[in-house]
This record gives sequence, structure tokens and C-alpha cells, in this order.
Amino acid sequence: MAAAEWWEALVAAAAVGGTAGSSTTVVSICVFTAVLCLCLVAGHLLEENKWVNESITALIIGCLIGAIIFLLTKGKQSHILRFDEQLFFIYVLPPIIFNAGFQVKKKQFFHNFMTIMSFGVFGVFISVAIVSAGCYWLFPKVGFGKLDASDYLVSTDLIDNSALGAIFSSTDTVCTLQVINQDETPRLYSLVFGEGVVNDATAVVLFNAIKNLNISHLKGEVVLKVISDFLYLFATSTILGISMSLSTAYVLKALYLGRHSTDREVALMALMAYLSYMLAELLDLSGILTVFFCGIVMSHYAWHNVTASSRITTKHIFATLSFIAETFIFLYVGMDALDIDKWKTSKASFKTSISIFGIIILLVLLGRAAFVYPISILSNNMSGSSERTPITFKHQVVIWWAGLMRGAVSIALAYNQFTFSGVTSDPVHATIITSTIIIVFFTTLVFGFLTRPLISTMLPRHSRALSRGHSTGSNSPNDDFTLPFFSTDEDASGSGIVLEQAKRSISLLLERPVHTVHIYWRKFDDKFMRPIFGGPQSH
Amino acid sequence: MAAAEWWEALVAAAAVGGTAGSSTTVVSICVFTAVLCLCLVAGHLLEENKWVNESITALIIGCLIGAIIFLLTKGKQSHILRFDEQLFFIYVLPPIIFNAGFQVKKKQFFHNFMTIMSFGVFGVFISVAIVSAGCYWLFPKVGFGKLDASDYLVSTDLIDNSALGAIFSSTDTVCTLQVINQDETPRLYSLVFGEGVVNDATAVVLFNAIKNLNISHLKGEVVLKVISDFLYLFATSTILGISMSLSTAYVLKALYLGRHSTDREVALMALMAYLSYMLAELLDLSGILTVFFCGIVMSHYAWHNVTASSRITTKHIFATLSFIAETFIFLYVGMDALDIDKWKTSKASFKTSISIFGIIILLVLLGRAAFVYPISILSNNMSGSSERTPITFKHQVVIWWAGLMRGAVSIALAYNQFTFSGVTSDPVHATIITSTIIIVFFTTLVFGFLTRPLISTMLPRHSRALSRGHSTGSNSPNDDFTLPFFSTDEDASGSGIVLEQAKRSISLLLERPVHTVHIYWRKFDDKFMRPIFGGPQSH
Repeated sequence: MAAAEWWEALVAAAAVGGTAGSSTTVVSICVFTAVLCLCLVAGHLLEENKWVNESITALIIGCLIGAIIFLLTKGKQSHILRFDEQLFFIYVLPPIIFNAGFQVKKKQFFHNFMTIMSFGVFGVFISVAIVSAGCYWLFPKVGFGKLDASDYLVSTDLIDNSALGAIFSSTDTVCTLQVINQDETPRLYSLVFGEGVVNDATAVVLFNAIKNLNISHLKGEVVLKVISDFLYLFATSTILGISMSLSTAYVLKALYLGRHSTDREVALMALMAYLSYMLAELLDLSGILTVFFCGIVMSHYAWHNVTASSRITTKHIFATLSFIAETFIFLYVGMDALDIDKWKTSKASFKTSISIFGIIILLVLLGRAAFVYPISILSNNMSGSSERTPITFKHQVVIWWAGLMRGAVSIALAYNQFTFSGVTSDPVHATIITSTIIIVFFTTLVFGFLTRPLISTMLPRHSRALSRGHSTGSNSPNDDFTLPFFSTDEDASGSGIVLEQAKRSISLLLERPVHTVHIYWRKFDDKFMRPIFGGPQSH
Repeated sequence: MAAAEWWEALVAAAAVGGTAGSSTTVVSICVFTAVLCLCLVAGHLLEENKWVNESITALIIGCLIGAIIFLLTKGKQSHILRFDEQLFFIYVLPPIIFNAGFQVKKKQFFHNFMTIMSFGVFGVFISVAIVSAGCYWLFPKVGFGKLDASDYLVSTDLIDNSALGAIFSSTDTVCTLQVINQDETPRLYSLVFGEGVVNDATAVVLFNAIKNLNISHLKGEVVLKVISDFLYLFATSTILGISMSLSTAYVLKALYLGRHSTDREVALMALMAYLSYMLAELLDLSGILTVFFCGIVMSHYAWHNVTASSRITTKHIFATLSFIAETFIFLYVGMDALDIDKWKTSKASFKTSISIFGIIILLVLLGRAAFVYPISILSNNMSGSSERTPITFKHQVVIWWAGLMRGAVSIALAYNQFTFSGVTSDPVHATIITSTIIIVFFTTLVFGFLTRPLISTMLPRHSRALSRGHSTGSNSPNDDFTLPFFSTDEDASGSGIVLEQAKRSISLLLERPVHTVHIYWRKFDDKFMRPIFGGPQSH
């Protein structure tokens, strides 16, 4: 078979290293670009389908291509690029996160700021704690050894366990967002979207904080250290992102680049956004948070200082880049699933693998449930005022479900912690990598498959229309259907309403500060920020 | 000096290799992105300036940054990235060329097709021959040794000389295009622009043909081989580019991706364009030609099948990418100019360096004059009809001048031929690299500086307005000013007109085929192509 041999030679050469020779890189890029195009078209054709979504399509296509390469090379290879976390963290992740910030509906986001932050930050802390503890406790019971097989301190083991916690706490909400309608359930959408972004950022930041831990100190200090590190990173990264985007806005406004060229405006916005990410990485901050806030602020100020064409172009180009990056990742994971080396290196028996898989899925379900429901209830209690729709039980289920999928960030973090440039010779580490891949596959395919039917059940058109009514009108009789925080349909009775009113009077007191902050911010924005940095002409 | 040491450590580490460690890559990307932003803003501020243009700005800023790094590292380094032709040919060049094809005014381009091709193809052949022969003859006279210092065949020397010819025959017309007004002198603009693109492509193709030569055959056969290789490459690359863009157009039209998402359309167009380039490279064709024709055909069909937002987005994003890529290159060249290693490796004395520089500049001037004037005269003779403005002497001077600047392609080809990943230990090769850098610098700075004044002299508002009149109206009395092909203002006398009329009657016969082809193409396009591949609604 001449074709097979030709392919074999090329792919074998390509596997040696991405940047080694010209032809190898060219082959990889060609195949990847072609397959990306295929994914685009397939995703379009399947868009109306009830069961699949873009992630699933890319995953399956990646898997098929992997299988073809696998057959052509007679079982030696299944992918054409070694996984490179650098590639992921330097080129693929920034556009995704920046676009998330850029496209976020700021009003909804900041309106739900406290709830989103609770989900995205405290939620991840809770989830990491549960998953880590669960792994630490359950793995030895199924005969899966110490995570770090070398003779290091026990504390390394702890770090590896905590790393596992962070890896399996980062969610992938793309799947769910494709199904939820932003106009029908704006608050739910905003919560799921906001949590997805903050969650990614938190998981990465927490992961890095854990990695850099020096555990020769006491355990209590360690926890404090992680938290203070996290807060420091959060604050500095946010400040960096905001100042970068403000300076972009200022330059665009003061120099009015559009006078001569739209291209220059677009280039400047994109480059400054990227620069903010890279600067954060250079200063050992969290690029992901920086670029997210850069995106938010840029769409609030800078975006209004450019020509109409620039506005259209930037909006679409950031979305396109993000879209390509996401497809790229799922494609890669699909190809990687058949990587025979990892399966061979991992010496875990079938039974152990199944147990590990079961444990992780269980911990993921549990870890998420452990914070979604309590925080929702808390949030409902804190802000049961007339202005906001509380998070109904059905919405809580949707939020819980939306965060069950594991995606690109999990994979990238796992490779970062347990491989060296995508290769590992340690059987325990290889097992973790293969488990991560299985988890990503399983959650994306099975949970992803079920998302659309689940949401149709939980939010039928009828009730979706209702929730939309809430967000615009308020205190209408329909409220009763959705207001009670532990509501099922039967709960919408008189007692629920009484309870509700009692809560409201309390929460009104608690809520005042948020409102006050918002009003002052508006004033400040109008009086000082917009004249300097530009912005929409009218509120 | 703490800052200097910190910088030194980072830069020294970065110099080891681009993809080695995380922090090194991050530093390089950060500095480059920041400096790119600086260039953008500086370019904008200096746009109204009579003397400088974007290339010059980028070159000077690059040089300054290089000097700063040079000082900080105490003379050890001047750049932060080793030159990587792969980077250049895989990532930087494709957007530039694709954008050129995408933005070209197709009507003007095809109207002047024969002239542009003569300039861009035959012109380069002539120029390569003159420069190669000149180097071969003159270099030994100034004491500059055999090009290939090793003990190979003499033919290697010949290849190196021919490579020099190709290197110094690729032009950089960006400088001039910024000055010529497309509306005032559409034909001149189209000629300069078209030649610039075709010239780049020809130079690269010819360079590769020369590189791959196996000169154990006879000399006559060699020339034939180069020409047949060239024609084969030209034909196959064009066909590949056209078929890729036609299939994109078909997919966009048949599936109507915009129904769901503009982002998907934009992504598909960009990816298919890039795929065409990479496929061409994979098949050992000329990616540059492929992607150029892909751009032309894509803007003719595919671009009309997408949503209005997609149209705006693609138009600007391709321009932006091209713009960034160009700035990147000049910035790099600026930084590279102070690379002390190359200057040390090159053992040429100051006198020899000056002589080499003088010889090359002379050959460049001569090589270009040797084809611009004859081909212009030929073109005027072939098509002196009422429909077209002939190329006046002043226009010829502008065309000649426009192609004197040497830019990114020259640098990339020189590095490709005479270094191994940007490093060379051969003194002769190092001398060629440094000479190339000097030539690029000199032509971009000095010739670039003079472009605006020269063009204001050659095409004063008054005469520019006239040429514009020609392109729309025809046979007006004003014709006499610009019609005679060797016209200076005094030539516009009676005898000129008589000569002109004689020429016209001849050329009318010669011109018929071009017209006929055009008419048949229109019919074919309307009847078969547009219904399948889409396109503008009306002519």
C-alpha cells in the first residue's frame, strides 16, 4: 500500500516534533486545517439535529480521523501533533476567553455578579476539595496506587490529588449554552455563561497555586496560602486587564485611528488584548482572568470608539477565532483518544480503569451538586426582591447539569501536570491521562447528548416564556410559578408566597448595597470614564 | 544593573530556541506584540508626513529596539527571535499574498493582465539573469570569493549566484502603493500592484526552481528545465488555487452557512484560503501563487455568497492580518540589522562591503531598467487603442522606481539559501546576509524616503487628474499629453499624434484576441459559473 507507507513516513516524522522539519509541520497543518473545515461544514449540517452539537461533532470527527491514521500506520500512531500545552495556553485559550469577555452581556453579568462569583469561585473551591478528598480516600481502595510513584514526600501526593481536583472542576459550558435561549431565559443564560468563564479562570489559577505550593509548612498555612495567592492573583490580574483595555480605549479615542484605516483599529484591539494576556503570563499572573476583564472593558469602552466596520469586524473575528480554537481542541482530544502509547503505558487493569472512571464521575456529580444547590438557595435568599427572578429548582438542575461536561481546560491541565510535552512513562500518570480523556469523552458525548432533551423537559417553551416574562415585567401572578427557590410545580401554593414575602423584606436590606454600588458606578462612569475612554452615546 | 541582567538572562534563554521554554517564548511574544502596537500608533501619527511611511517606521523602531536590547545585553544580542523561514513562509507570507489577491481590483488587473505578467514574469527572468551574471562577473573583481566556500562543484557557485539574482529581483511595492492614488491613476496603480504580487510569486518560484536544480546536465538543458519547471509550477499552482476557492464558493452557496452563523462563514473562508496555501506547499507547488489566485477567485465568487457582516469582516480581517504580517517583517529586519554575530562572521573588509553593496545596488537599478522600459514600450505598441491609457515615460519611471525597494521576501530567501535556521558560520554567506540586510535597509529608507517627492514631481495633481480623465473618457484632446509612449511634455506635438494613429491601426488587430477572450469569459461566467458558484448580482 503506497498511500499507507507514504502517510506512515510523514506521520512518523511529524510525531518526532512539531517544529522539526518543514514537511512534517506542513502535513500536520494541512490535515488539521482540512479537518477543521470538515468540522465546520458538518457542524452546520447537524445544527438542527436534536442530539448532537458542535463539540460532539468535532470529537467524533477527531476520533474517526484518529482511527484512520491508526489503521494507515498499522496501530503505531493516532494523531499528527503531540499535545503541546504551550500551544494551548499561548495560542488557543486566549481567544476563547477574550471572546467570552467581549461578548458577555455586561448588564446581566454585573447584575448577577455576586451569584456568578459565588458559583465560579467558591463553587470551584468546594468542588476541588470534594474531588481531591474523594480521590485521596477512594483511589487506594480500588488498588490505584500513590499518584506520584517516585520516592518524594507524601506532600507531592497531596499536590497531585489537589491537581486532580482542579482538573476535574473546570467545566465546559459551551454544550449547554448552545441549547439555552438567551432571550427566553436571560438570567439562567447569564449565570451558566458567567459561571463557565469564571470557573475556567478559577480552575487554572487554583491549579497553578497548587502546583507552586511548597508544602514544607503546616497544613493550615497551606490553605491560607492558596487562598491569599488566589486573591492576590485575582486582584492583580483584573487590574492589569482593565488598565490594558482602558489604555486601548484611550488611544483609540484620542488618536482616532479610524480616520485613516479600519484595519489599524482592528489590529490594535486584537494586539492589545493578546498583549494583556501575555503580559499577565510574563508577570506570573493569570492571563485568563486578565484577558477576560480586558474583553469586558474593551467592549464597554474601546469598541465604541471605532468605526462601524471595525465594530462589525472585531465582533465577528473574535467570535470566529474562539470558535476555531474550540473546534481545534475537541478535534485534538478526539484524535488523542486512540493514542496507543498512553494506553500501553497505563498498566491499570480494565477493572481498575472502570473503577477509577466511576469514582471520578461520581465525585464530579457530587462535587458540583455540593455547591450549586446551596449557593442557589443562598442567592435566592439574598436577593429575593421584585427585580430579579430567583433561581428555581429547575434552573438549578440546569445549572448543575451545564457544568458536568469536562473539556479542553481539563485536558490541558492534566497534560500540564502529568506529562512532559505530552509524553509520560509513569504508568500512574498515564492512567490519569487516559482517565481524563475518557471522562472528557464520556461527559461530552453522553451528557452532551442528553442536554437538549433534558433542557426541553426542564424548560418547556411554556415555562421558558414565563421566565422571560419575569425578567421584563415583575410581580405578575405568574411569578408564583418560578419564584420559590425549592419550587416544583406543586410548591407554587399560598405558603410559598408567604415565605417569599418574608424573605423579600429581609433581602431588601441586604440588597441595598449592590444597588447603591450600581448607581454610583453609573454616575462615575458617565461623569469621568466615558469622557476619557469613550463609550456608547446613551444609556 | 538588575534590569539589564534580568533582560540578559531572558533574552539569552530566548535566543536558544523559540519553543524551548515557556518564559522565553512569552518574553519574545510580549516584546513583539508591544512593539507592533507601538508601530501601529507611530505609523498612524506619521501617516500625514511627507517623507516616511509604515515600512520605514517599522524598520526604524525595530532598529531602536534592537539597539536597546544590544545595550542592555552589553553587545551580545540585538534580537529576541532567531529568524525562522518556516515562521515566515508558513504564517507570515500567506496572509500578505492572499490579501493582495483578495483586494486586487479584478477588472483593472485582468484588463492589464498581459502587461502585468510581462513585468512580473519576463521582467524577473531578465532581472535575475542580469543580477546573477553581474555578481558572477563583478564579485571576484572586488576580492569577494567564490560564493560557496566548500569544495563542491563549480555549479554550486552558479546556483548560489542565481539564487542571489532571485533574492535581489523580488520587489517590495508597498511603499509606492501608499503614495499612488488608485482613483487618480488606476492603470498605473494596477500595474505597480499587479507587478508587485506576480513578481513576489515569480521570485519565490524561480528561487525554488534554481535551488532544486541538479546541474550535472548541460547548460542549455538547465535553462530549459528552469523554464519548464516554472511553467509547470505556475499552471498547477493556479489550478489548485482556483479549484480550492471555487469549492469554497460552492459550499458557501449550497449550504448557506450564514443562515446560522457569520462566524462559520468567516472561519471557512479563512481556513480554506490557508489550506490552499498549505496544500500547495505539501504538493511542492508554489503556495504563493496558489493563495494569490485563491484570493482573486474567492473575492469574485465566494465573497458574494456570504452575509453582509461576513463581507465586511473578511475584507477587514484579511487586510489587518496582512498589515500585521508586513509590520512584523520590517520590525524583524530592523532588529536583525544589529545582530553582531553576523557582522563578526562576515570577514569582509569595509572596502569590500562597500564594493559589494555598490555592485548590488547598481545591478538592481540596471536589472530593473532593463525590462521596465522595453516591456512598457512593447505594451504600448501592442495596445495603443482608444480604450487604454498607454504607459507614459513618467509612468515608466514610477514603475521602475516602485520596484527598487527590497523587502521581506528578499530577506526570507537570503536566510533560506545562506543560513541554517538563521545561523551561518561561513564568512561568505554571512557577508551575503549582511549585504542583503543593508540593501533592504538602504532601499527601504533612502529610496522609500524619496518616493513621495519623486511621485509628486512625476505625477503632479494636474497630470494625475489628466490620466484619470483618460481612463474614463477617451480620445479627448488631452490624450496627446499622455499617449506617446516616449512622451515628455514636448513630445505631445503633431508628429506624435500621427505616429500614434499609425500604431493604433496595427494594434487594433493585435488587440482583438484579448477583447474576444474577455467577452467570451463574461458570457461563460454569467451562464455557467455564477449560477453554480455565486457572484455579484449584476455586472
